[in-house]
Amino acid sequence: MEIARRIVIVGGVAGGMSAATRLRRLDETADIVVFERGHYVSFANCGLPYYVGGVITDRAALLLQTPESLASRFRLDVRVDHEVVSIDRAAHTVEVRNVRTGALTVERYDRLILAGGATTSHERASSSIPTHTLRTIDDVDHITGTLAATGSPASAVVIGGGFIGVEAVENLVRRGLDVTLVQRGPHVLRPLDVEMSSLVERELRAHGVDVRTNTTVVAAENGVATLSDGTVVAASIIIDASGVHPDTTIAAAAGLAIGSSGGVWVDAEQRTSDPAIYAVGDGAEKMDAVTTDADSGGILVTMAGLANRHGRAAADSIAGVPLPVEPALGTAIVGLFETTVAMVGWSERRLAAAGRAHRVIHTHPDSHATYYPGAEQMHIKLLVDPESDAILGAQIVGGAGVDKRIDVIATAMSGGITASGLSRLELAYAPQFGSAKDPINQLGYVADNLASGATRSIQWHELDTEREAGARLIDVRRPDEFAAGHIPGAVNVPLDELRGRLDELPVGSLIVHCQVGQRGHTAARLLGQHGFDVRNLDGGYATWLAGVSAFAAVPALA
Amino acid sequence: MEIARRIVIVGGVAGGMSAATRLRRLDETADIVVFERGHYVSFANCGLPYYVGGVITDRAALLLQTPESLASRFRLDVRVDHEVVSIDRAAHTVEVRNVRTGALTVERYDRLILAGGATTSHERASSSIPTHTLRTIDDVDHITGTLAATGSPASAVVIGGGFIGVEAVENLVRRGLDVTLVQRGPHVLRPLDVEMSSLVERELRAHGVDVRTNTTVVAAENGVATLSDGTVVAASIIIDASGVHPDTTIAAAAGLAIGSSGGVWVDAEQRTSDPAIYAVGDGAEKMDAVTTDADSGGILVTMAGLANRHGRAAADSIAGVPLPVEPALGTAIVGLFETTVAMVGWSERRLAAAGRAHRVIHTHPDSHATYYPGAEQMHIKLLVDPESDAILGAQIVGGAGVDKRIDVIATAMSGGITASGLSRLELAYAPQFGSAKDPINQLGYVADNLASGATRSIQWHELDTEREAGARLIDVRRPDEFAAGHIPGAVNVPLDELRGRLDELPVGSLIVHCQVGQRGHTAARLLGQHGFDVRNLDGGYATWLAGVSAFAAVPALA
Repeated sequence: MEIARRIVIVGGVAGGMSAATRLRRLDETADIVVFERGHYVSFANCGLPYYVGGVITDRAALLLQTPESLASRFRLDVRVDHEVVSIDRAAHTVEVRNVRTGALTVERYDRLILAGGATTSHERASSSIPTHTLRTIDDVDHITGTLAATGSPASAVVIGGGFIGVEAVENLVRRGLDVTLVQRGPHVLRPLDVEMSSLVERELRAHGVDVRTNTTVVAAENGVATLSDGTVVAASIIIDASGVHPDTTIAAAAGLAIGSSGGVWVDAEQRTSDPAIYAVGDGAEKMDAVTTDADSGGILVTMAGLANRHGRAAADSIAGVPLPVEPALGTAIVGLFETTVAMVGWSERRLAAAGRAHRVIHTHPDSHATYYPGAEQMHIKLLVDPESDAILGAQIVGGAGVDKRIDVIATAMSGGITASGLSRLELAYAPQFGSAKDPINQLGYVADNLASGATRSIQWHELDTEREAGARLIDVRRPDEFAAGHIPGAVNVPLDELRGRLDELPVGSLIVHCQVGQRGHTAARLLGQHGFDVRNLDGGYATWLAGVSAFAAVPALA
Repeated sequence: MEIARRIVIVGGVAGGMSAATRLRRLDETADIVVFERGHYVSFANCGLPYYVGGVITDRAALLLQTPESLASRFRLDVRVDHEVVSIDRAAHTVEVRNVRTGALTVERYDRLILAGGATTSHERASSSIPTHTLRTIDDVDHITGTLAATGSPASAVVIGGGFIGVEAVENLVRRGLDVTLVQRGPHVLRPLDVEMSSLVERELRAHGVDVRTNTTVVAAENGVATLSDGTVVAASIIIDASGVHPDTTIAAAAGLAIGSSGGVWVDAEQRTSDPAIYAVGDGAEKMDAVTTDADSGGILVTMAGLANRHGRAAADSIAGVPLPVEPALGTAIVGLFETTVAMVGWSERRLAAAGRAHRVIHTHPDSHATYYPGAEQMHIKLLVDPESDAILGAQIVGGAGVDKRIDVIATAMSGGITASGLSRLELAYAPQFGSAKDPINQLGYVADNLASGATRSIQWHELDTEREAGARLIDVRRPDEFAAGHIPGAVNVPLDELRGRLDELPVGSLIVHCQVGQRGHTAARLLGQHGFDVRNLDGGYATWLAGVSAFAAVPALA
């Protein structure tokens, strides 16, 4: 086992500390030095919003390790309040600044691991309102300090509708604040497609959040934030969760290759363009599991799980027992009030932008057997390669069981299971946990029917064009469902009456739909065998409504 | 598409009805006739125990379809109260008895699907106490009738500690009954290994259930059941959940091949030895996904999910669009009070009995990040092929998140992901859903450390033999943990003091352990690099305690 004698690690949170402890388990003798510019190491950064919200009440619970505990168990030399400011690659040294004293020292390394994470050094509007990021223990101390000083109830503006932003929103609402979410882009949670983020925005608004998309904060003075659309909203505190990007300052200054994504370029063992230097975590680029073109560059995925795993991989490589990392799927999840939002792989928007062929499936199954109390509906979108039947991505919005289904899909993607193959997964069933045909199996059945040509479908955003071209829309739901709300111009012929009313149907192209797609499929099969030219509206009325609602809220984008 | 004109289906619940509806979607013109000997079709058999317990309060919710609804939507000819009593393969006919009138008719088929399920035609002790099975709507009507007549509180004996048996126990306790569970074998939930079922029995006893293993009921008279050990227990009702086996009566009488498991033999398209006859569901044998020897025969897996899927596969085959079924993993789950029990693949006992090499891993992770409130500990066992690193099986006992983890493992097995490969799965992490290193990833890390030789481990049941051969046991937990309970004779050297106390350690073979195995691994790595001959006690004190507790409760088996 080849061992580098002195390993210097820049950054003492997820990726850096995973690398450090794994290295020690592989090598009792190496000198392992960790420099952390903040005052804390190995803290629970994913828990910070929940401490602000009072869900986590014990601040000490956020501090998973201390320099002392890491010294006694792993014989690590952990130096907090120390910032690595430059790398001398020729000399194999780094320059380190003591944040408290300003003193500079030079430290030698045999191997260097860059795990400094991301940063938020973007332009901010001038503000006399307390404005905080939400990334460190210091940040949450400042936020809770501001909230205590401001008194309650108060109002907040959260800038940025990404993961941290929406978690901040939820937790500020939990503390009783009136919250405005200001999102520069057209919808929150940018990795989602619009008909899925529409469901998220509905959930936020249902909890009283003022969601402002296509908007920025242009000024923040005297208790009000002025938005780019000219309106003003009350704000006694601002949380800025926008503009996060990889912190590549010292890597770039040292001439290390930076990938097209903006993160430090690394190989499959997390080595940078300098083989003595590794990079892991939010500052490093990831290989993309869905990209088929090796030249298309890496991606950024700012997830703690990947940071930990890649830290371990760097340690394994340094210790001479390399286990190359696999490309990243970008699996992610966020809880919002009673809703869970999860995603993996590519979105429809991203596939379309890349010019990549794709098939789309929407379903709206219950989390468990409907006959057992407590089932919650979820909304699933699956992206499929129409040639290979490979799963390209998935998005799920719902309640119970969303986390399970995204993990099963991510695992299926890793295992090369096709979309149709999801029908054959043998998932655990008892009525409080799932269905005999689990939502995952149902996705597989839909995929199989599309792949075999048993059903043809169209998407919600294709409906207008199809109807302009002459297609007629048949709603096969029950009359009471139709009466409660339907797509304008649809004709209601309930599925159970369809065989007896074939004569009533118009000639030419038909589009059938039900509430979620399942009865529509049965109707399409029935009509197809009777000679009709018929397609099923994928995801039914539920998906159509979510899609058009997104644009109704933002008319300028329709 | 080749279509058989008249398809007769025997049995109208999971497998039969999936076949019937799929066939109709594939073929508008075929005659499809379903004979069901009971009075109900397509009922929620997995929900029956929960209706007894009052969790499901609406009896109508159990009845998913009726002959009328199936006629209007799918044009199926569904005849309840009709039992198929024999098959004339040469004539392509079945003889059908009207259960209400006794009238016999002969019905022609082009293709026949046997989906009659399982039966319980075993010997029962003579009884003057109301005794019921729990398999049909009629059964639950009888049970609730008996309970209403008996008044409350009352006492019950449940015979059989399989899935239905323990679900019956839970639901009778929920209704306020004192319950005795009588299990012929040495432990409940036979597919589990003993240190895992020990946890289940602990949960049952914690809820006041009198669990009697290695016991049968020999008589039941005058409100008491006499057990084989001579004791008597009160019983105002008996639920017999024992002795379920495939109902192969008409198949065997017709000369169809019966597999070594006792189920009807079928090929990958669910065809029996007569290509015009298919069999699906609990009466049909399954291919085994874990068996490597093609000649070793099939298995029985009585799961609704497989019945549904195989019903669909039979329909696809009959319609000429076959999609061969995959071998069965036997994924299963059951909820018991606050505990969830799940399993997939083979157990250690089964692997050992088959003489198949295997590696065992026990872990005890939290369901989600420990710093976020509400995490629940789960207990995982993973069985691994030491040559190929293939996952051979898993068992999980715990609370929240057990269903997710068994489904991820089942999916990984289907996708051919190795045990070490579990470390690389990119599972969704936010603190309320999992950990940055998910329990599944942790299993993969342990597997990788064992596969690479970084750690060696021993099992709880090997400890006595190893110590008799001279190995010394070091408990590396904190002194307060040691004081709260430890393995007799273990020496306590806390992990954080280990480097400074190497001189105190005995020479020769060492076995280290902690509470769950993780600190033990760090200790083993540390000591190994300092030249000690050291192994880690897999699963730590927690697994050892569960294992010895199982035998403490049944001393005769130790």
